[in-house]
Amino acid sequence: MSANGNSVNIEKRPYHHGDLRAALIAEGLRLLTDRDAESFSLREVARNAGVSATSVYRHFPDKEALMTALAREGLAQLGAAQVAAAEKAGGGLESFAATGRTYVRFALANPALFRLIFASPALAGTEPDDCDEADPMTFLRKNAAAAGNASPDDPATAIRVTRAWSLVHGLAMLMLDGQIAADDALIERVITADIV
Amino acid sequence: MSANGNSVNIEKRPYHHGDLRAALIAEGLRLLTDRDAESFSLREVARNAGVSATSVYRHFPDKEALMTALAREGLAQLGAAQVAAAEKAGGGLESFAATGRTYVRFALANPALFRLIFASPALAGTEPDDCDEADPMTFLRKNAAAAGNASPDDPATAIRVTRAWSLVHGLAMLMLDGQIAADDALIERVITADIV
Repeated sequence: MSANGNSVNIEKRPYHHGDLRAALIAEGLRLLTDRDAESFSLREVARNAGVSATSVYRHFPDKEALMTALAREGLAQLGAAQVAAAEKAGGGLESFAATGRTYVRFALANPALFRLIFASPALAGTEPDDCDEADPMTFLRKNAAAAGNASPDDPATAIRVTRAWSLVHGLAMLMLDGQIAADDALIERVITADIV
Repeated sequence: MSANGNSVNIEKRPYHHGDLRAALIAEGLRLLTDRDAESFSLREVARNAGVSATSVYRHFPDKEALMTALAREGLAQLGAAQVAAAEKAGGGLESFAATGRTYVRFALANPALFRLIFASPALAGTEPDDCDEADPMTFLRKNAAAAGNASPDDPATAIRVTRAWSLVHGLAMLMLDGQIAADDALIERVITADIV
């Protein structure tokens, strides 16, 4: 390809606005599969994605901005996984248990991304713009309400949801931190004992 | 005091082995009251405690070693707070709930220390040498067993303890991370709904 004009064109082809942002997020997510968020720089993400530092700064002024975007994407993925698991389980208590199971398994499968989601102050209490379902709290509340035939705004449902979220979040964190052995059968017993 | 020989002696008085270690741990705990563990160096702890870097390294070869000692001390404090709360509550389910309440309140009162305890791989699954009671898992297991009139080795008790620990750990982490508003009444409702 050394003397091929086309290959040069391809390499130098400018990214479209959305493409570049998506490419940087994809590379950030890839790095998070085996490294902590603290361990890499915005510069490294840009270099791996093959884009210039100048172009990066147009989308993410600093590393914090990229991390917030990665956390938001992670939250959307977690929400989507919970929606899929709940639908597959067929509704009611089974679906509610399925969302809890999925939550813990997502954490164990994506430790750095999971930690990043919950360490991001920018995300606390907010819902992603594009999808209400992707907010774990909103989603859990809806499922708890559906499982108990209650309104999501019912105070008892709110406590139930806070308990369920705390339970799966704590189990996930204790397993990620090596305090409790990460074990599928244990996840199952803890979740079915409490949620269903 | 400028020309006073005694004051010079006092300033240069060498620490006893135990004193120096204790002084460094005390200073580390003091720093953790308003800063994260990542934000200070072993050198800063030594300087604040008024000891030379050389003396520090005799007790803590690196920052990691001091952090492990701080986490161990934090775990002992958490355990002691739980023991005190359980005794005050008078036993049974009330005592079990008291340990959970104390766990979450300890986390909210000592965020950096609490995070350090559970981020310390050296402590995972171990019990402090000096006090079994100071290990949250061991202590929770004993209380759960006492509350349910069961043996601590009973499998149902083990699940119950894992659930209770996950619940309070998750509630503490979600409150520390700003995902759920830190609110005493909410802690109370979540814990009494689940544990008692």
